[in-house]
Order: sequence, then C-alpha cells, then structure tokens
Amino acid sequence: MLDPVQVLSDYVRFPSVSADPAFHEGLNGARQYACGVLEQLGFKVEVVPTGLHPIILAERGGDRAWPHVIIYGHYDVQPPDPLNKWTTPPFEPVIRGRRLYGRGTADNKGPQAVQFGALAKVFAENPNLPLRITFLIEGEEEIGSPSFADFLKKHRDRLREANLVLLSDTGSPNPEQIVITTGLRGLTGLEVTLTGPRTDLHSGIHGGALLNPIQAISELCASLHAPDGRVNIPGFYDDVREPAQWERDELAKYPRTLEDYKQFLGVSQFYTAPGYTALEAVRFGPTLDFNGIGGGYQGEGSKTVIPSKAFVKITMRLVPDQKAEVIRELLEKTLRHRCPPGIKMEFSLKEGGSPYAVVPPGHPNTPADQSPVLARAFQSADAAITECFGKKPLYLREGGSVPIIGQIRQQTGLDSVMIGLFTPEDNLHAPDESFSLDILERGVAAYAKLIKGLAAG
Amino acid sequence: MLDPVQVLSDYVRFPSVSADPAFHEGLNGARQYACGVLEQLGFKVEVVPTGLHPIILAERGGDRAWPHVIIYGHYDVQPPDPLNKWTTPPFEPVIRGRRLYGRGTADNKGPQAVQFGALAKVFAENPNLPLRITFLIEGEEEIGSPSFADFLKKHRDRLREANLVLLSDTGSPNPEQIVITTGLRGLTGLEVTLTGPRTDLHSGIHGGALLNPIQAISELCASLHAPDGRVNIPGFYDDVREPAQWERDELAKYPRTLEDYKQFLGVSQFYTAPGYTALEAVRFGPTLDFNGIGGGYQGEGSKTVIPSKAFVKITMRLVPDQKAEVIRELLEKTLRHRCPPGIKMEFSLKEGGSPYAVVPPGHPNTPADQSPVLARAFQSADAAITECFGKKPLYLREGGSVPIIGQIRQQTGLDSVMIGLFTPEDNLHAPDESFSLDILERGVAAYAKLIKGLAAG
Repeated sequence: MLDPVQVLSDYVRFPSVSADPAFHEGLNGARQYACGVLEQLGFKVEVVPTGLHPIILAERGGDRAWPHVIIYGHYDVQPPDPLNKWTTPPFEPVIRGRRLYGRGTADNKGPQAVQFGALAKVFAENPNLPLRITFLIEGEEEIGSPSFADFLKKHRDRLREANLVLLSDTGSPNPEQIVITTGLRGLTGLEVTLTGPRTDLHSGIHGGALLNPIQAISELCASLHAPDGRVNIPGFYDDVREPAQWERDELAKYPRTLEDYKQFLGVSQFYTAPGYTALEAVRFGPTLDFNGIGGGYQGEGSKTVIPSKAFVKITMRLVPDQKAEVIRELLEKTLRHRCPPGIKMEFSLKEGGSPYAVVPPGHPNTPADQSPVLARAFQSADAAITECFGKKPLYLREGGSVPIIGQIRQQTGLDSVMIGLFTPEDNLHAPDESFSLDILERGVAAYAKLIKGLAAG
Repeated sequence: MLDPVQVLSDYVRFPSVSADPAFHEGLNGARQYACGVLEQLGFKVEVVPTGLHPIILAERGGDRAWPHVIIYGHYDVQPPDPLNKWTTPPFEPVIRGRRLYGRGTADNKGPQAVQFGALAKVFAENPNLPLRITFLIEGEEEIGSPSFADFLKKHRDRLREANLVLLSDTGSPNPEQIVITTGLRGLTGLEVTLTGPRTDLHSGIHGGALLNPIQAISELCASLHAPDGRVNIPGFYDDVREPAQWERDELAKYPRTLEDYKQFLGVSQFYTAPGYTALEAVRFGPTLDFNGIGGGYQGEGSKTVIPSKAFVKITMRLVPDQKAEVIRELLEKTLRHRCPPGIKMEFSLKEGGSPYAVVPPGHPNTPADQSPVLARAFQSADAAITECFGKKPLYLREGGSVPIIGQIRQQTGLDSVMIGLFTPEDNLHAPDESFSLDILERGVAAYAKLIKGLAAG
C-alpha cells in the first residue's frame, strides 16, 4: 500500500518552482507524479490547461446522493534561494530526526501526502466508500494563483454541486495544538505616485518655492491613521463585524503570551487600534499598512535634490464584512480629497480579495441554514483531531489572506474546512523547509477518520 | 600675449574629473596647465598637497601697503556622463556659433580664463601694478571641497593678511544682466533611520500589532511643516534676518516673472512660507527639504511586507543669521521629542555650513566699519560691469550654498565679491556644457577694469 513518507519524498524530488521559467520540467514532473498517485487511488484525472501551469482536476464519482468534497492543494513550491543556507540540497529530500527536509515538504506537498495516505488507507478498508471527491491541485499558488479565477468561472457549475472544500494550507502553533482556520483577512491596495515639479530640482536654487513630493506623500500617509491607531478613512469601519465572544475565548487558549509575541517581533511595545489586544488585532481587526515608500536620492551620502516624484505602496487587510472594492474606493476617494494642490496623483496596482469567514456548528452565531454536510465535516474533523493529536483543535481566524478561498465561495457558495498541518518550525518559504513525520503520521490517521465521517451514513 | 579663448580651450582638454579616480592624469594635467599660466603671468606658484587633489597657491607679492586680493577658482570638473548626450566629445573643445563647448568650459575654467586674460592685459600695460594677488585654485570643489577646511586652517595667518576674495563661480540670468552675489544660503542636514520590528514581517500575519516604520517616518516628516508652509521646529526662525528693502527691490528687477518661474518648474502653483513670493523664498527664506525617502519593497508589483526600517534624508537651507550647528541640533531635538515609542531612531550624515551674506557699500545696512578695499572692490566691479556689459549689475543673494565662502569668512574674516559669469544656457553639470565667447570677451574687459580699480591709487 501507498507509503505517505515515500510519496512525499518522491513528490519533493521534482523542483516545481512556479516563479521561475527555468523550473518548467520540475513543474511537469510534480504534476505528473501527483496525477499518477491519484490514478493509483482510482481517480479519473484531467489536466486542465491554463495560461501558465495546468490545474489537476481529479474525480471520484459516485451516487449523486453521496456527499461531495473538493480537496484543494498546490503542486508548485517557493524558490529555494538562498541555496547556500540549506543543510542539504532542497530537492534531495532527506530524513533527519523525525523530519523530512526539502523545498515543498510542508508547503504544500506534505499535507497532500497526508491526504493521499489517508485515502489509500480508507479505500483499502472500504473500496466502495459512499463519498464523492474532487481534487483541485493548482500549480500557481506561490505566484498568486493568476489562472485560478478563470478556472473557477469556467468550472463553476460542476464545482458548485459539491458540499464543501477541504484543505490543509494553513498553520498550527505546534504538533500538539492543531488549528482549524475559520477566517482569513481580505486584501486590497494601491500604489500611489505623486508628481510635483517636471524634473528633479536643485534644493538650493529652488528650495522654498514649491511643495516637495516627499513632503506631500508623507503628509498623505500621516493622514491615514488617527492618533489612537485606527485607520482614518471615513467609512472604513462601517462594515466591520466584531468577533464573537467564542472567537476571543478560543484565541485566549492560543499557546502564545503577549510578552512572547513582543519578543518575537522585537518591539518594545505594541501599537494596536482600540478594542483589541495585539494577538486579537492581527486576526480580528482591519489594517492599513505601508509596504514600501520611495522618492529622491537613496544612495550613500547626500544629494541635495527636490525630487519630481515619490511613491508609496499601500495595502489594507480586511475583515468580515468589509468588501475589497468598496474599501479600495474609499481609500482612493480619501486620497484624492486630501491631495494638496499643485501635486499630480496617480494610482496603480489595484488588486484585491475580500475577507472570508465561516462559523463552525455549535456556536451562537452559526447560521441556522448551515449545510448538514459542512456541519458534519467540522464535527468529524474535530473528533478526528482530538483523537489523533490528543487535544481539541482551536477555531481561529488568521490574519493572512488566501484569496482562492474567498473566490471559491464567491463563485460556488462553498465554505472551506482548513486544517493547519504545518507549524512555525517547518520554515516555510525559507531554507531547510521540513515537515514533521509525527504530524504526517497523525495527520493520515485524522484525515482517514474525517473522510470516513464525511461519507454517507 | 595670452589669448583667453586659446587658454580656455587648452585648459578644458584636460579631463579633470575629481569624482572618479580614473581621471587622475587629467587632474594632474589641468593643475600643471594652470600653474604654467600663472607662472607665465609672473606668479610664484606653490602646489599644496592635500589628502586628495593638491591646491594651487600662487602669489604675486609686493609692498605690504598695497591692497591684497585672493582669487578663488577650481580646476576640477563634473563627470561628463551621459557621454552619448554630447554633440561633440566633452574633452575636445570646439567653437560653435559664439560658444566654446566642453566639460568645465563654464564651471569653472571659463571664468578663470577671464581672470588670466584680464591679468595678462593689465600687466602688459602696467607690469608694476600696485596690487598683491593670491590665487587659490582647488581640485575638489565638485566633490564638496573635503580638503579645503584643513587647508584654510593651516594657511589662515597668511591668508587673513588679504583684504577680500574675488571669484566667479556663481551665475547670472543672461549675458546682459550680470549678478553680483551678496549671499548664499547655508546648508545642514541629517539622515534619519527608524527601526521598528527586528526584521521585515508579513503584513497579513502581523499587521495591526505594531507601528510600521514607514508610518512612523511619514508622521515625523509630516510634523516638520506647519499648514502654512513654515518649518515646524521650535526656534527655527529665531535668528532669521529679514531681507532689507533694497534686496527686495533688486530682486524685483530680476528678469523673470513668477509666471515664467512656475512654467520653468512645471508646477501649477507655488508653495511658499508666508511673507515671501516664490522668487524671494528661494533666496531670502530658510527651508527644510526631504531629498530622499525609502523603506520596504520598492520593486515592481506588490510585496506585503511590514519593513523593519525606513529612512529619510533631510537638508535645511539656512539664511543669515541662522547657524548650521544650532539648527541641526534643533532638528535633532525635535525629532527625538516626536519619535513615537517603540521605534528606534538613528542619525547619520551630519554635515553643514552656515549661511553667508555681505552688504555692498551704499546701502542703509552697509556696516559702518566696512573695509575700504572691499568697498572699492564692489564699486570697481559695479563700474566695470556697467561699462563692459552695458547694464548695472544686480546685487542678489542666491539660494544655493558654497560652503567655502562661509569657511573663508569664518577662518580669515574676509568677505567675497562674487561676479556671476555663467548663465542657465551654459548647461552646467550637464551634457553640452559651454561658455559664451561674448561673456569671455566682456568679462576680460570688466575684470581688467576691476583689477586696475583695486590697485593702490
């Protein structure tokens, strides 16, 4: 029978770096490998071409009355640079201690090996398991899933027949405390470029006559937060839904103190908007952050120039029920309103994704019309994790953004059950990425239990 | 007799770029050439070594009762890049129309050719002219004169025996309207670096918990100007001396309208502190400008990072009687006071030079104890320019800074008579730099008259 450690090791050997065209063969190899495993598991495998890296769409059909779960994953990985920081080569997986090292072991090939291993186990016991499964494994996740929205639109009718999405591309604090992610912040932003004089000017000859674009951009940026730390854009908080008490209670069980967190960040004090602790603010609160600013002379020493231009890159993390489009328009309107006379303002890089949240069954704010299959999936996951990892999972929203989760809900109406299988120790996106063999083993057992729980009774 | 056009052409042929060690031979060549011309004119020439490029110190002695003038110039030039923008090679001087083209023709070899030509003419008529002259020609002006302060200190006693400094390293608006520069703004500044978290952070995972250094630097920068455009540093204006009415009157004769100036800058409106027009503000008012700002991700597209650091380069142009040290300390104190908690602030690049101003004879604010030789120099220059250029010169302070002028006064007590011989058409520091042969010709005549006027009667 399929050995998940062997599967993961074989899978990682293909250098499937989506960001770099030089790794084209690695992407093909990883995709073909995953297709082979899925065929071996009895799936009908289709490879759907996109503008860039094809998407694997694999189906296990069955009676239309059976529950239907979509399992999402990605076969692409982050670039392995800097190579000289790896203890062993990134695409030559090796086991040291109870970990398998290699690029992609945790993100996202390890969790897929868990799912493959669990299915092999379940199908060996019950080849006629009454459950329909559709695998969606994309190859562009690490570069922002540029083809995924189009794919969803084209396959919407087929996908919306399913009951839920199951995935493991989020994290947990440690192998003892698994997190089921119940929400993700949305993301929207703008790049703002200001132009003052037609060309860079000598600050001696012309200083004092005109508004310096760096001054203008500083004053604009400074206007975007109130002294109490809240975002100072009229209407910004209008649609913000406060976290439920049970969500704060769950977070209170999170194994990290504020003092730990401060030390981790390396700051002497937090800076949060009123009403949230720092640990709450990063999950429940919306933000406006400056990701980059530039203008004028940035080299060594001094050059007494008044620059013609300055720019800033702004992104905002959104929480339910803020809408990306609406908030981006509020920002644009506010900036236009505050732009000083004599300065030309241009916007670029308009991108965005709305926030996502789901409420598991059994809470005061669980929707009355929640799908019974989704409810059963959460309950099965809870029971399976409690049994196999030894502790009840925490249900937490996460501060990051996974735009495909919001897109899936928008296009198909489906909610997602996100089970965190990687931990901070795994070094995602960094040298010496690894995946815990303990989590792999417990994960296979838990996923098997969950899959069985999902099947028709 | 010495032909100033030939001298300029020969002098320009030496590529004396001080910023680039590759031009070492060019610097040696230009220096030796200037020394040769000065010896030919009867000067006793000394080459004073410095840490970098030696200074020419050439003397024409005489009776100690004779007036004594120091003539300042520099034999180094700006780099010629971008080379492909030159019509003819920068170090192969050619005449087109009534202009000599080549790097350094205007800045500063042309004005020196004027001085050499004038002296040759005067000495031919009167070999025993009762005037002592000391030439100081440095080779590091285009890189900020790093060796000059030390040189001044070492030769202070010898130099302070002179009565005044004469130089032509400033500009005039056109060949019909010569400007005698009566003041220069001072310059001081700081580079400010702010550090927030110990490393760059993911803005999804950590956004909302801590103060983003770009936000902090924007708020600091925004705090440095009041809404009316004045610099918002307590004490900044305490020592500012308002321009005299005659200075405003002189400026009103300057051949540029506010509308012209706006078009030149390419702005739809000015931004000046109260009490000054834009043309006044750049000469009579102090400023605080941001010359560069940077932090976070500045590449193409988007990277959702909270940066660990952000920096800004600030310089201030100072007017009499502000003092560079005092103002820089006020800025430091204000920044430290306003730096938000949780942010580490560091300063670098502390540099500075105080402003300079001189009042020519015949004004309400001319010092009662003004040296008669200085007064005669201004009067001779005025008469010579009026006669040879056809129009009375304007007496104007300039917005730029020439730190050596302030240093000379500080070390020797000497004032400077600065006669502007280059014009905007000359393309200083840019491709196709040139010098007007009309100005060269009129300049020789005017300088000859001035020199004769300066000599003992």
